[in-house]
Amino acid sequence: MPNQTEPLDSVFHALADPTRRAVLQQLSRGPASVSELAKPFEMALPSFLQHLRVLEDSGLVRSEKTGRVRTCEMEPKPLTAAEKWIGEQRALWEGRLDRLENYLTELQAKGKDDGDGS
Amino acid sequence: MPNQTEPLDSVFHALADPTRRAVLQQLSRGPASVSELAKPFEMALPSFLQHLRVLEDSGLVRSEKTGRVRTCEMEPKPLTAAEKWIGEQRALWEGRLDRLENYLTELQAKGKDDGDGS
Repeated sequence: MPNQTEPLDSVFHALADPTRRAVLQQLSRGPASVSELAKPFEMALPSFLQHLRVLEDSGLVRSEKTGRVRTCEMEPKPLTAAEKWIGEQRALWEGRLDRLENYLTELQAKGKDDGDGS
Repeated sequence: MPNQTEPLDSVFHALADPTRRAVLQQLSRGPASVSELAKPFEMALPSFLQHLRVLEDSGLVRSEKTGRVRTCEMEPKPLTAAEKWIGEQRALWEGRLDRLENYLTELQAKGKDDGDGS
């Protein structure tokens, strides 16, 4: 299945959940322990850990255990790749709009010239 | 379930599949009919239509039927919202890195001053 091999698949999948986005939002401000991250959510710990697992599988989050504390950190690279992909589509779309607009402006100018000439 | 009501959830979910991303990529170059869009994929039409449905549900794609032809168009707004969300996390993360760097530079400068003074 291509779904499993494409990095963008797992990054966008990880971003498609409000809990996981909230965790990333917190981690973008700095590293945090799993228990700190879990605190704001009314959720059983195993469910929360599953979300964390999805984030780690996507490469968006790294974690390290020191003694009893597991500390998580955001990894910005996959986020940048996702942002880049979206930006490219937007740029293509805007480029097309600009060309349409130029074409319409030209048509209009041509119409005026023809009007002046007749 | 909050998953169903959050627009970003459905946008990121729609982006988490290579077929759907390829369809968007094509539509960012301009509108296309369903059969044009389906052509590059070795996929049964019902499966392809399901992908198209996910894209439409997320608001990323609009379609209109004229006679027998259904034409699809990209809708850039949800894409911009997704890009914005990612950009915000990246900015937060970069801001934190900058502050860390400034702090380290200050520490280093202070260490030098102390060294000169002794």
